[in-house]
Amino acid sequence: MNADIGLVGLAVMGQNLVLNMNDHGYTVAVYNRTEQVTRDFISAGAAGRETILGMSTLEELAASLKRPRKIMIMVKAGPVVDAVIESLLPYLEKGDIIIDGGNSHYPDSTRRMNSLKEKGILFVGSGVSGGEEGARRGPSLMPGGNPEAWPHIKEILQAISAKADGDPCCDWVGEEGAGHYVKMVHNGIEYGDMQLIGEAYHLMSEGMGITAEEMSGIFKSWNKGPLDSYLIEITGDILAYRDTDGTPLVEKIKDSAGQKGTGKWTGIAALDTGIPLTLIGEAVFARCLSSIKDERVKASSLYHSPDKSPVSDRISFLKDLEQALLASKLISYAQGFMLLKQAAADFGWKLNYGAIALMWRGGCIIRSTFLGDIKKAFDDNPDLENLLQADYFKNIMEQGQASWRRVVMKAVEWGIPLPAMSSALAFFDGYRTARLPASLIQAQRDYFGAHSYERLDRPAGEFFHTDWTGQGGGVAASTYNV
Amino acid sequence: MNADIGLVGLAVMGQNLVLNMNDHGYTVAVYNRTEQVTRDFISAGAAGRETILGMSTLEELAASLKRPRKIMIMVKAGPVVDAVIESLLPYLEKGDIIIDGGNSHYPDSTRRMNSLKEKGILFVGSGVSGGEEGARRGPSLMPGGNPEAWPHIKEILQAISAKADGDPCCDWVGEEGAGHYVKMVHNGIEYGDMQLIGEAYHLMSEGMGITAEEMSGIFKSWNKGPLDSYLIEITGDILAYRDTDGTPLVEKIKDSAGQKGTGKWTGIAALDTGIPLTLIGEAVFARCLSSIKDERVKASSLYHSPDKSPVSDRISFLKDLEQALLASKLISYAQGFMLLKQAAADFGWKLNYGAIALMWRGGCIIRSTFLGDIKKAFDDNPDLENLLQADYFKNIMEQGQASWRRVVMKAVEWGIPLPAMSSALAFFDGYRTARLPASLIQAQRDYFGAHSYERLDRPAGEFFHTDWTGQGGGVAASTYNV
Repeated sequence: MNADIGLVGLAVMGQNLVLNMNDHGYTVAVYNRTEQVTRDFISAGAAGRETILGMSTLEELAASLKRPRKIMIMVKAGPVVDAVIESLLPYLEKGDIIIDGGNSHYPDSTRRMNSLKEKGILFVGSGVSGGEEGARRGPSLMPGGNPEAWPHIKEILQAISAKADGDPCCDWVGEEGAGHYVKMVHNGIEYGDMQLIGEAYHLMSEGMGITAEEMSGIFKSWNKGPLDSYLIEITGDILAYRDTDGTPLVEKIKDSAGQKGTGKWTGIAALDTGIPLTLIGEAVFARCLSSIKDERVKASSLYHSPDKSPVSDRISFLKDLEQALLASKLISYAQGFMLLKQAAADFGWKLNYGAIALMWRGGCIIRSTFLGDIKKAFDDNPDLENLLQADYFKNIMEQGQASWRRVVMKAVEWGIPLPAMSSALAFFDGYRTARLPASLIQAQRDYFGAHSYERLDRPAGEFFHTDWTGQGGGVAASTYNV
Repeated sequence: MNADIGLVGLAVMGQNLVLNMNDHGYTVAVYNRTEQVTRDFISAGAAGRETILGMSTLEELAASLKRPRKIMIMVKAGPVVDAVIESLLPYLEKGDIIIDGGNSHYPDSTRRMNSLKEKGILFVGSGVSGGEEGARRGPSLMPGGNPEAWPHIKEILQAISAKADGDPCCDWVGEEGAGHYVKMVHNGIEYGDMQLIGEAYHLMSEGMGITAEEMSGIFKSWNKGPLDSYLIEITGDILAYRDTDGTPLVEKIKDSAGQKGTGKWTGIAALDTGIPLTLIGEAVFARCLSSIKDERVKASSLYHSPDKSPVSDRISFLKDLEQALLASKLISYAQGFMLLKQAAADFGWKLNYGAIALMWRGGCIIRSTFLGDIKKAFDDNPDLENLLQADYFKNIMEQGQASWRRVVMKAVEWGIPLPAMSSALAFFDGYRTARLPASLIQAQRDYFGAHSYERLDRPAGEFFHTDWTGQGGGVAASTYNV
């Protein structure tokens, strides 16, 4: 009964979190369903660490923990999490805490919190980001669930988390599945950031004929400016990495990226709640399109590519591209925070947007200086309606918009797809447009379905129907919503 | 016991279907929960028609029907459908048929079919499109569900349906929720078509300063070419319609379009199954963006619009725009059929794509000559992998791509958002690109999450992991899927 925390599930993320906790002075009891994994970990990765204790059964694990017990689960999201919780329950007491650190879907975390609450067990669903390296050295942690758990786990979670300018990248997110919701949006943003970098790479390699080695230098120089971020940094490393034959390894990797998880969920959440999360949507769909490689190869021989007339000034075009990347990225984050705001309203969560930006500021895959600017924008105005209304970002967008347009136009001319950057620009142009053509869409819906419409010159909530052809009936279309 | 069919739910769609059935010689028993609606219908809309019989209870309705009973339900999608079915069951016998003609979500139809099958009742979920006018004069009908029902309802459904070149726009779609799935995709495509027309309208009015009246003429002329379709036709009418003060009514309509139904479902289905349905996704999101009108008005004063240098040749730019609209539309349909194909694979349905194109060819909101070309493409090659590989469409795309690029570039320069058209172009460029930058995304995922990758120079299914920094561990990331 002397371990500070237990951890179930010793794949790479679990092992590294254990080592991280142990580095911070915590005694950790560990368990894995296949016991050999536990034995291997104790004798190899955890060798020489006497305060990492291997357990053969969950009963032993529970018996080894200080009260209230704190048990972190790092297993595959889905039914396995429920199975582990069920197996643990016989050995737990009221007030004990279960932390699910997997990539669980937020409605599951909401369900688990509420069902465990009835049993007196405090459930926390915590997003964990940073990959294996983050888990080992300091991840971003996004815990949410039963708020009674927070005082008991705050110290250890903040201790092992990344720090940004000394502040832990871990804070209480909110009730129910809020922690996993925020992690989901984080991952969606990650999809977007990766797609944007991919598009810049594509434009430079296919459009400008820049070598991987040169590009590595360009990404490294961008990493010293406002784009400074983990993903830009590792892209610089990746482009410099050579295969055994001396050529860039990236060019030998199959261009089919999977999408099965949180990016997809983010898009679905956005559609469900009616938030135009276009950039992440395009990024997820771009992965889908990448995965039908054989069909693309076939189509590439059916269709001509436009001629690629070179840019007149390469240096200035690369500066344009840096601006385009930054502006697109801001759109993605603005959309992400729009989604969080709507989720908070829909689910009755109180989310602290500045704290969320800080949680993402370090440790996780999307960590960047940019998130420090976002945090500052919310610190300056906690009621900020949209990041695009913050002065700092407004100035970036105003300065960058001409560059951004040049880049998108050139890509369209060249036939190089920039689904995320061009979608972001269309969103920006829509967002700053007082009158959109949705008036025509409303007229069409009223024409064929008698859906009625509001008028600009009449108060909201007053609905009108026009008999556009002089032949329609007067019956309202209450059951038939297109 | 002499009515051919019963209909429950007398809102506009229900009333019009009843009149349509009656026009074709069928005796129809009708019921509405609020009896006054039935009485009003019998004495007004159905006045003088002795073979439309008003019923006060569901028991009376059931008693009035020939066996096996055929009862069509036209009520609000969702729990109301289940409630009506529950209320009907006591009065039904084995072999009776329930047809849900509402906009039900396909998983509900799958569930209802399977649960009613156990009770010996044959359930059909049928998409009905065409709005009130279609319901009255001949809708597109997309029935699916229990195939045993089809021989009993085929005659009446095909009789009341629209006809295209003499063929009924109604055929058996498939098992379970296949009918409502196809209707859902139809509606998604409808969202896309409406958005594309909205974008053309926006570009002409804001970019080129063309008046609503002139535009009406342009749409009417487009309606004589390959864009010939119901939505183009009604757009011509709408733009010509003047308010009481003589100005175009469309300009007084509030530019906030709702999205709560099938468009959203289509996007979610695409994300779920991994099909890049970008155009419909953008169309749904464009409605979301339209709905935050107050925020857009605010943003319009924060941001500058680029200068709008006029096009050099208006006539030729309008021709470009027609091509851009056609090319974008083809992308949307190609994506829609990709989704249907994947759904058929996922759910084990056998879908006849040519028959689906024919069902949409007439009667429904997206009816067009274009769908005749799609039907022909599938008739010519039932195993067609993608519409973009059919010669006819390939030629359209090859001829139109330069025009399409000019239109998107001009809109980007002008700052006029074309989310659907530009997204469609990015998809086209991605689809015909043999090597996409997903290789870099795979490298990033392997770098930070040890996700591993395939190589172009090695067989598929062989996975590689690189220790990009020389510091990573050797543990596979089996539990942590970004």
